Amino acid sequence: MAPDDESISGEEAIIALLRPLAGPEALGFSDDCAALTPRPGMDIVLKTDPVAEGIHFLSSDTPEDIAWKALAVNVSDLAAKGARPIGYLMALSFPQAPRRDWLQRFALGLQVAQTRFGCALLGGDTDRRPGPITISITVLGEVPAGTMVQRAKAKARDLLFVSGSIGDAGLGLRLCRTPELAATWQLAPDHVETLVQRYRRPQPRLALAAALRAHASAAMDLSDGLVKDLGRMLRASGVAGSLDLARVPLSKPASEVVKRDPALLPKLVTAGDDYEILAAVPPDRGAAFAAQALADGVVVTRVGQVESARVDTPLCIRDAIGNDVHVQSDGWDHF
Amino acid sequence: MAPDDESISGEEAIIALLRPLAGPEALGFSDDCAALTPRPGMDIVLKTDPVAEGIHFLSSDTPEDIAWKALAVNVSDLAAKGARPIGYLMALSFPQAPRRDWLQRFALGLQVAQTRFGCALLGGDTDRRPGPITISITVLGEVPAGTMVQRAKAKARDLLFVSGSIGDAGLGLRLCRTPELAATWQLAPDHVETLVQRYRRPQPRLALAAALRAHASAAMDLSDGLVKDLGRMLRASGVAGSLDLARVPLSKPASEVVKRDPALLPKLVTAGDDYEILAAVPPDRGAAFAAQALADGVVVTRVGQVESARVDTPLCIRDAIGNDVHVQSDGWDHF
Repeated sequence: MAPDDESISGEEAIIALLRPLAGPEALGFSDDCAALTPRPGMDIVLKTDPVAEGIHFLSSDTPEDIAWKALAVNVSDLAAKGARPIGYLMALSFPQAPRRDWLQRFALGLQVAQTRFGCALLGGDTDRRPGPITISITVLGEVPAGTMVQRAKAKARDLLFVSGSIGDAGLGLRLCRTPELAATWQLAPDHVETLVQRYRRPQPRLALAAALRAHASAAMDLSDGLVKDLGRMLRASGVAGSLDLARVPLSKPASEVVKRDPALLPKLVTAGDDYEILAAVPPDRGAAFAAQALADGVVVTRVGQVESARVDTPLCIRDAIGNDVHVQSDGWDHF
Repeated sequence: MAPDDESISGEEAIIALLRPLAGPEALGFSDDCAALTPRPGMDIVLKTDPVAEGIHFLSSDTPEDIAWKALAVNVSDLAAKGARPIGYLMALSFPQAPRRDWLQRFALGLQVAQTRFGCALLGGDTDRRPGPITISITVLGEVPAGTMVQRAKAKARDLLFVSGSIGDAGLGLRLCRTPELAATWQLAPDHVETLVQRYRRPQPRLALAAALRAHASAAMDLSDGLVKDLGRMLRASGVAGSLDLARVPLSKPASEVVKRDPALLPKLVTAGDDYEILAAVPPDRGAAFAAQALADGVVVTRVGQVESARVDTPLCIRDAIGNDVHVQSDGWDHF
């Protein structure tokens, strides 16, 4: 048997390691295409979101974490649309042949992630090319026909909710890059770990899908920062809105950090990688939405409200006493 | 207005240029997901096949050619499965922001290609990262439920057919890289052009889809070379087979080249990028398959036959007088 630390030789060897991930639609990878029989009365929800080393994950991340994140960031979009994951296609590219043990751990990490999310690998492709390791996943989900929760349907007077807590992953990324910040921020080791895990292991809010379908006018997942993504939702919907900074839910570790350095609060709402859900909910549905979310295991917090359309400034950010706040960068842009 | 030769600034500017390509399922890119309502009684056929500069296309290729090829290589798989294209998702990555005129021409090339193939853009993603320009397309097609033509279903005694002609793209790639070969091979300018176009503008054999569904036991498209891909079909099907080199259909320009240099013939059957279709057809269906293909505008040629299973040597290649031929490399492998 080949030693684990040797490079994999040949596409077939790579495919063999990934074969256990295949759903029945993939025909055991004996074919170059997959065939999916949609369930009657269901729409297919589609999304592609590649991740690359050095941009979406770090070279020091474990193969298990990389696999998790590559799938989770795509499944997170499905959750925001009220969809249930079905399966995914995955194109892998490596600058040189991966080591067998790396690929084995990557495959096992994917197995854990797809089992958790309830989907399977439908097909894929592997290439060698220069540049960072890249994992390009296209995910498919299903919703009852016509019920996909859209981004562009926020209405005036809708309440704006976010799930979980905001900014943890941004702090986690800073801690990965500059470990000394743990001391600067006087963080306990378990709090450091929590923040780093929030960066490395985003948790798609699939449990929120039913509440979103039942109550939300609009929803999207937060990947590029709350301020930027909320701005996108408002613009796409042709409405304006306000965000109350004081209402933005922070985790215990993030609260500690902000207590030490209040200037970080605006950075938390512009940091990417939250993978929480932003939802616009009609005012008379707000309580029911929050109650159903909680019953399904997800805390949602009201952070703002949709107002009537103002084309010039779609998003107004307010501090605790209602003053307008100017936020410098509104989030991540690849260009 | 911005000058055409400036770099594009911001993801939104890139998305704006691609918006005319969006199908209704993409909701005008106002959302981060697409919703597709499958037609009742149809299966969805799925495939992902990214292309990268320097590997699948050349830096000197025009943006229109690159766009065509990126979509065509994916649609080619659908054709082989007997499927009709519906739509595609596309993740673009650039090492630096693309120039506006490059992206405009790329978008226009895609528009031409998707109109020809009968599909539309459903969604996508853009990233900046080091490495070559990469276009990662995931394509969706449809077939009547249960009728996808599989790769692993070739049966003993099936006749092996290929569409069109083999090896043109391989010669075209050589001519792109080493233009002096045109003189060596004494090729007329129009023949050079034909071979280069076969590399740059693969023509998915969508017209063959109906004949494949009606008659073929198995089919696949040829991307990594006839010998390698036929070997894959035979292995996946658990059968053996033979390829008659003398029967392999060559275009007029390729025949000229082989006349000058007969040693090139084995290289033509191992060259990639044909994007022709390989089909296994039961012997009593062979004539009907060829006739329907021709009626639909595609010439198919019998190049071999499936034999009973021989695990040791699944593929036997024979020359014009029936002697076994040993072919050195059996095609393209990325690792």
